[in-house]
Amino acid sequence: MDLTEYVPVVPDFPEPGVGFRDITPLLAAPDAFRASIDRLQEAVEAYPYDSIAAFDARGFLWAAPLADRTGKPLLPIRKAGKLPREAAVETYRGEYAEVRVELHADAVKDGDRVLLVDDVIATGESMAAGVRLVEGLGGTVAACAALLEIASLSGRDRLDGYPIVSLLGKL
Amino acid sequence: MDLTEYVPVVPDFPEPGVGFRDITPLLAAPDAFRASIDRLQEAVEAYPYDSIAAFDARGFLWAAPLADRTGKPLLPIRKAGKLPREAAVETYRGEYAEVRVELHADAVKDGDRVLLVDDVIATGESMAAGVRLVEGLGGTVAACAALLEIASLSGRDRLDGYPIVSLLGKL
Repeated sequence: MDLTEYVPVVPDFPEPGVGFRDITPLLAAPDAFRASIDRLQEAVEAYPYDSIAAFDARGFLWAAPLADRTGKPLLPIRKAGKLPREAAVETYRGEYAEVRVELHADAVKDGDRVLLVDDVIATGESMAAGVRLVEGLGGTVAACAALLEIASLSGRDRLDGYPIVSLLGKL
Repeated sequence: MDLTEYVPVVPDFPEPGVGFRDITPLLAAPDAFRASIDRLQEAVEAYPYDSIAAFDARGFLWAAPLADRTGKPLLPIRKAGKLPREAAVETYRGEYAEVRVELHADAVKDGDRVLLVDDVIATGESMAAGVRLVEGLGGTVAACAALLEIASLSGRDRLDGYPIVSLLGKL
């Protein structure tokens, strides 16, 4: 099954000249969505992990089923102001705005191997912020996993030295 | 397993006087998280559905595993400006601000029975907006499902006539 057919490009979104990978056809096609979770689950087996950190919001779509399947703790990395308890904070320059992300301070214990999961690696800035959050709390990054990378943005360059799992590769 | 222990109240969040139900301990406890998905899956069997509409962002945490388990299409209801194609739009007065939510226009076909999934029914305004989105696109609402309701906010009153699945009841 060629999953790239299920993530078509929508031109000029969110602004003129940008081609946006639309994941909603994949979500709406149960066999394809399940196949993507199967592939994620299999691909990350090479990188032992104790918990799954999931990026708000679309990372939740893959991380939550993976947590359900594997029985690993699920740790949400959320946009500013969403987490109610003491949290580590990182900021980064997003594609369209400055973004502040948070992870509860008690979510990661010293030495925990944390798998980071998002839908897309674009600039890599959000994933890199996730790496800083995990390491700042004493954890190690097992791998940075995503459905796909945006080829034109070279996000991989910002994650040098960390294992990257990219199910559909650079699109 | 008493799942209410895993959704403790954090006082004075997001503002003084408000008690916020923190779902992150539940997510971080794999047996409890899986039990919550088990209960959701079982509870909604009474309400036949063709697809699962999931509220951005925390609704994704339950809807995505449910879609993985059941093989139903997953339809994200997103905050304004996130969906790249033609979308139905509804607005509502949230607890803290006016909110605009969208659902892709092709996500629901005439007569589709759609299960709405969120984490918490608070004022019920977001769930009611989800109902309007689904019905506006020609679908019917199978049920409105959530992990819990906030007792002090009577969200159920805004969903009169629609089946409500509330796994932990009014807290």
